This record gives sequence, C-alpha cells and structure tokens, in this order.
Amino acid sequence: MGLSYVERNKEDLLSRLKKIEGQIRGIQKMIEEDRYCVDILLQISATRAALQKVALSLLRSHTRGCVARAIRQNRGDEAIDELMQVLDQFTR
Amino acid sequence: MGLSYVERNKEDLLSRLKKIEGQIRGIQKMIEEDRYCVDILLQISATRAALQKVALSLLRSHTRGCVARAIRQNRGDEAIDELMQVLDQFTR
Amino acid sequence: MGLSYVERNKEDLLSRLKKIEGQIRGIQKMIEEDRYCVDILLQISATRAALQKVALSLLRSHTRGCVARAIRQNRGDEAIDELMQVLDQFTR
Amino acid sequence: MGLSYVERNKEDLLSRLKKIEGQIRGIQKMIEEDRYCVDILLQISATRAALQKVALSLLRSHTRGCVARAIRQNRGDEAIDELMQVLDQFTR
Repeated sequence: MGLSYVERNKEDLLSRLKKIEGQIRGIQKMIEEDRYCVDILLQISATRAALQKVALSLLRSHTRGCVARAIRQNRGDEAIDELMQVLDQFTR
Repeated sequence: MGLSYVERNKEDLLSRLKKIEGQIRGIQKMIEEDRYCVDILLQISATRAALQKVALSLLRSHTRGCVARAIRQNRGDEAIDELMQVLDQFTR
Repeated sequence: MGLSYVERNKEDLLSRLKKIEGQIRGIQKMIEEDRYCVDILLQISATRAALQKVALSLLRSHTRGCVARAIRQNRGDEAIDELMQVLDQFTR
Repeated sequence: MGLSYVERNKEDLLSRLKKIEGQIRGIQKMIEEDRYCVDILLQISATRAALQKVALSLLRSHTRGCVARAIRQNRGDEAIDELMQVLDQFTR
C-alpha cells in the first residue's frame, strides 16, 4: 500500500504548520510594535482558524486510517471512544 | 441486532433535549424579569454546553453506526468526508 | 432616560429565543422520527449558532449599559473582569 | 501614567507567544516523527487553548484601555461595536 494517510498529508501539514509558526511570530512583532489591539486579535483569530484546519485534516486522516482499520478488525468501539474524547476537546 | 445505536440513545437524547428546552424557556423568563445580564449569559453558556453534549452523543452513535457500517462495506471515505463536514461546523 | 439597552433588545431577544425553543423541539421530533444523524447534527449546529447570536446581542447591551456605566463611574475594572470571565466561557 | 495596559502585559504576552511558537514547532516534530495522531491532536488542542488565553488577555487590556477611554469620551458605541465584531470571531 505504501504511505499511510498521515504520511500522504505530511508535507501539506508541515507546510501549514510552518505558516502558522510564521503567523505566531508575526503576532509577536505586532505586540512589540504596539499595533492596535483589534488588529492583533483578528490575526490571532486567523491563526486559530488555521490551526483548526490542521486539526480537521489530522482528524480526517486518523479516522480514515487508524479508526477505519480498528473498525474492520472489530475493535472499533475503543477507537471511536478515543476519537470522541478528542472531539470533546475541539468542540468546546 | 435489535436497536441501532441511535435508537438506544433515543430516550437519553430526548430527555436531555427536553431539559434544554426548559433551559431556553428559563432564559426567556430571565429576560422578561430583567435579570442581570451576566447571569443570563452564564445560563446561555450552560445551555450551549448541554447542546454540545447532545451533539457529541449523536456524533458517537453516528460514527459507531453509519460510519462504521460504511467502512466495513468499503464505502467509508464518503461517510468520513461527510462526518468531517459536520465536525467542521462544530469546531469553529 | 427611558428603557435600558437590555430593555430595548428585550422583544428581539425573546422572539429569537422563542424560535430557538422551536428549533429544540424540531430536533426532538427529528430524533423521534429516526431522521439521519447528520441532518440532526446540522440542525443542532444551526441552533447553537442562533444561541450564540443571542449571547452576542446580550454581551453588546451589557457592555453598552452596565460596563459603560461602571467605567464612567470609575469602577470599570471590576465590571471588565466580570465581562472577561463571561467571555472565557464563550470562547472555549 | 506611564505604560498602557497593553504595554504592561507586553512582556507576559510575548513570553506566552514564544511558548506557543515552541508548541507549534513541537507539533511539526511530532508529525515528522509519525507520532500517534491522537497525541498530536491533543497537543494542537492545548496550543489552541494557550492562544485563546493570549486573546482573552488582549481583550481585557483592550477593553480596559481603548474601550474604556472611548466610553469616558462619549464615543463608546463605536468602540463597543468593534469589540463585538472581534468577539463574534472568537465565539464561533
């Protein structure tokens, strides 16, 4: 089969996280330069949304990979419970 | 086989939604009685959290039921994509 | 002075909450009728968003009313701290 | 008078953002090392919460500073409307 779903997404995820790292540094710069709070807050909001997209992408590959495999091997309930615990964190 | 996962949760979900309906009416009463905004807001926050728990419970039963079935029948990708679209709504 | 900000919004807030109450009952009906989970989840998501709008409207009137009054009377810090505690609940 | 509220928080905010930057790099490393998805997701969730705390801290200093000043100068409504637009982003 070759690469896992996570593997396939790896490059994409790393490039997104690299961009998010840059956004975090940009926010630091905005604070150092005493930029207007509201502009900083909107930048934080954009960064949070970008991080959320990374999480959704990982959730998709995790569900397609680990969770689907567990279901096919009749040990799905545990994997789904674990998935729900993660979702509980993300949907607060 | 018997009841589906949703079926099993049905009574529990309905009783939770009945309680949430009561909370919504309680919030209306608080507004009619000019109660302190902050108290009303905290009540809205509690209701939102209760609604979120209903959603998580449905997500669990949907994943254990429909999604798991689709995966076992080798048509999992579509079901997982649909699940992710729902999650995208809930994790904003 | 006449009506407070909350007072002015009262009718609007009550009409929105009445609609949300109807949405909650609609969700109960969907569960009773074994409707597709994903459709129920999207309806919950819409209801959650409607509730969030009510909260934002209350936050606005609270800030314009109580918080602004406290700031003008030089006792703003306490009111702002309380506001932040509420926001902490809503931004999780 | 001296430092503004933002100014006072500056060092604290920058140190938190530095830590968040480290967390983002840590997530990249986890992905490179093919760590378990669920562990990565929990780390993303923790980072998101840390970012949210930075936002709340900025919201507090913005409200205590800019918004309070605007209210005292009888031009509060505009500042509060702008604040609500930011909150609308953060409470989704």
